[in-house]
Amino acid sequence: MERRVVVKKYGGTSVGSIERIEAVAERLFNDCKAGQIPIVVVSAMSGETNRLIALAQQVDPLYRGPAYDLLIASGEQVSVGLVSMALEKRGIKTQPLLAFQLGIETDSVYSKARIKNIRTKELQRLIDQGIVPIVAGFQGVDEFSNVTTLGRGGSDTTALALAAAIHASECEIYTDVPAVFSADPRLVPKAREIQKLSFDEMMEMASLGSKVLHIRSVEMGAKYNVRIHLRSTFEIREGTWIIPEGEIMEQAVVSSVTHDPVTYVFKLFPIPPETSFLSRLFTQLADKGVVVDIITQSQSEAGQRLAFSVTQEDYPLAESVLQALLPKDKLTKEVMSKVSKISVVGVGMRNHPGVAARFFSVLAENNIQVHLVTTSEIKISAVIDEANLTIAAQALHQAFDLDRN
Amino acid sequence: MERRVVVKKYGGTSVGSIERIEAVAERLFNDCKAGQIPIVVVSAMSGETNRLIALAQQVDPLYRGPAYDLLIASGEQVSVGLVSMALEKRGIKTQPLLAFQLGIETDSVYSKARIKNIRTKELQRLIDQGIVPIVAGFQGVDEFSNVTTLGRGGSDTTALALAAAIHASECEIYTDVPAVFSADPRLVPKAREIQKLSFDEMMEMASLGSKVLHIRSVEMGAKYNVRIHLRSTFEIREGTWIIPEGEIMEQAVVSSVTHDPVTYVFKLFPIPPETSFLSRLFTQLADKGVVVDIITQSQSEAGQRLAFSVTQEDYPLAESVLQALLPKDKLTKEVMSKVSKISVVGVGMRNHPGVAARFFSVLAENNIQVHLVTTSEIKISAVIDEANLTIAAQALHQAFDLDRN
Repeated sequence: MERRVVVKKYGGTSVGSIERIEAVAERLFNDCKAGQIPIVVVSAMSGETNRLIALAQQVDPLYRGPAYDLLIASGEQVSVGLVSMALEKRGIKTQPLLAFQLGIETDSVYSKARIKNIRTKELQRLIDQGIVPIVAGFQGVDEFSNVTTLGRGGSDTTALALAAAIHASECEIYTDVPAVFSADPRLVPKAREIQKLSFDEMMEMASLGSKVLHIRSVEMGAKYNVRIHLRSTFEIREGTWIIPEGEIMEQAVVSSVTHDPVTYVFKLFPIPPETSFLSRLFTQLADKGVVVDIITQSQSEAGQRLAFSVTQEDYPLAESVLQALLPKDKLTKEVMSKVSKISVVGVGMRNHPGVAARFFSVLAENNIQVHLVTTSEIKISAVIDEANLTIAAQALHQAFDLDRN
Repeated sequence: MERRVVVKKYGGTSVGSIERIEAVAERLFNDCKAGQIPIVVVSAMSGETNRLIALAQQVDPLYRGPAYDLLIASGEQVSVGLVSMALEKRGIKTQPLLAFQLGIETDSVYSKARIKNIRTKELQRLIDQGIVPIVAGFQGVDEFSNVTTLGRGGSDTTALALAAAIHASECEIYTDVPAVFSADPRLVPKAREIQKLSFDEMMEMASLGSKVLHIRSVEMGAKYNVRIHLRSTFEIREGTWIIPEGEIMEQAVVSSVTHDPVTYVFKLFPIPPETSFLSRLFTQLADKGVVVDIITQSQSEAGQRLAFSVTQEDYPLAESVLQALLPKDKLTKEVMSKVSKISVVGVGMRNHPGVAARFFSVLAENNIQVHLVTTSEIKISAVIDEANLTIAAQALHQAFDLDRN
């Protein structure tokens, strides 16, 4: 019988109640009986991390540091305990593991730490002894022994990092959706399941607001050549495989329409002429951990204009940086809220000119004004009014031949 | 300015909400300004450990092992994060610390682990740098790097162990009562606060059902000569000092009336004549972790009678042991429920004969029947009917001159 080691990550909704934890344990029990050796990575029970973040924000919404990470990492610890107990009850020997026990070493960028190294000795010893490791996702330990966290969705990255560390060829991500869809079905009812997606496409989608997979987990899959199988916790069937581009025979021009419902755009005018202003601005934003998404700059008779967008999560921080910085510079600031970002993604764009033209035509035909635009080799994004989001998504989905037959 | 290092433990109700955590942080901030160097130990927010235990019991009520301890230890982690953030907000540098970071090493008796060693190097380094350590109570790490827990109330023991490890002369236990009382004020309205209590008295009280302090913390205070200051989180005033007996000048004969409202008495008759029966019975109870409290044996014409009491918590286990054991031995079993234990405690008893006489006189004057009795050098306990508990407590409290003036 084949004894295959498979890293399996179960997300928050998959372990969201005692009943679901029992169902996960039952499935893992069957995996073991079928000859697999699972390495299990779990997220916090759904809602738990949000509860912990809300507690932290009541104390200090601006704090970032080891106390915050230690606090929000506690949710995974609960899931590890419960999943481990549910498997032990079924006669499976387990070892609950927090990051410090396993040696998941990260840098010290709290709340957004990156894994630097995983000691595999302990993991290998457990596997050799037939003991199932139950690992807390999302967390690491830095060189000062502080608990760190990997950012929202970080349990995916824990799973991929473990798979890479033990040289596994694939990693299973169990979630509450059966697959990656060509668009969010709540927005585009004709959205369909995607069977195969390249690492590059999935990375673009993750960076554009798709919450299906943590972007660093996809980067890790690409870098270490670990195929990612995203599938449903609640159904026994295949979902979406995220694999090297070369393994996908028939490549669609556009594989998905992705959106981020809430984004914020800052408009600044007039930008001071000295060249240091922009570097000062973006350095200070970066120092606070704000990820600036789209940046556009334009020259008018009255002076230089700058606009840039940030995510909802980073908005309060960005606002505080600007408030500290701007008074010295005598420029006006305008904030556009109630705007969304809509994107199309597809590796096929590389070989098909005219995607951008079609993208803008579709928006124009629907009288949708574009505030900001950015493109990469395999995606086009536009910031539009929130009110136009649904119509834009549906129109683009149809225009790029993604509607379900 | 005196820079005194003081270990301060804040219990579950003291950190039971964000408002209370802010109040704790404010008080610690003032302690720092007044020149103290606090080492802070925190419990889980009130209700949190019970919530976690309930989750675990839904999966498997009988499981004991590392997964359970890892799970229920997560509550303290949340408190550590929040208290640390609330202090950082006030400009105090802190270091959140879990057991693995601090090196609180325990044995592997999960759920009831004992501290074997604390590495003080890290603690000393922080103190020297003026950084306030915020330590998770209740938890430790065993030789396999598994998280362990110290039993209910274990955060007290964490605090005393830290104080002992750094050779502190005192340790502050902040709680939701202002002091140890001469009796439970709900039972005896005239109960008064005790200013000074010896370690021996507090240990007796803890073992007799007083929930004010974890008994092992008091043992540790006595062993390492760390004076314990039990005081209110919500008031700025002194509470009760638990100190070496020699430091208490005027010793009352009896310092408190303590009770355990619910106890269970098993009566067995006739006890088989072979001498092995009692050892077999008590060995099996001990093997299941049942703590037998009072034991009495008496000889009548009809044969030997045995009676012993157990706590409410241990009663179901004791019952199951007896049910497995008794059928072989052809004796009858009677269980007295609805009984309580009432005790008087005081180191002064050592030098004052006649305390037992007065104790029984008071009960007799009030027509209170005594079912079982036990004494030690500094306490007398009696099992009486639950219905008589209040009148017994009040009468004893008055008879031993404990009523508030």
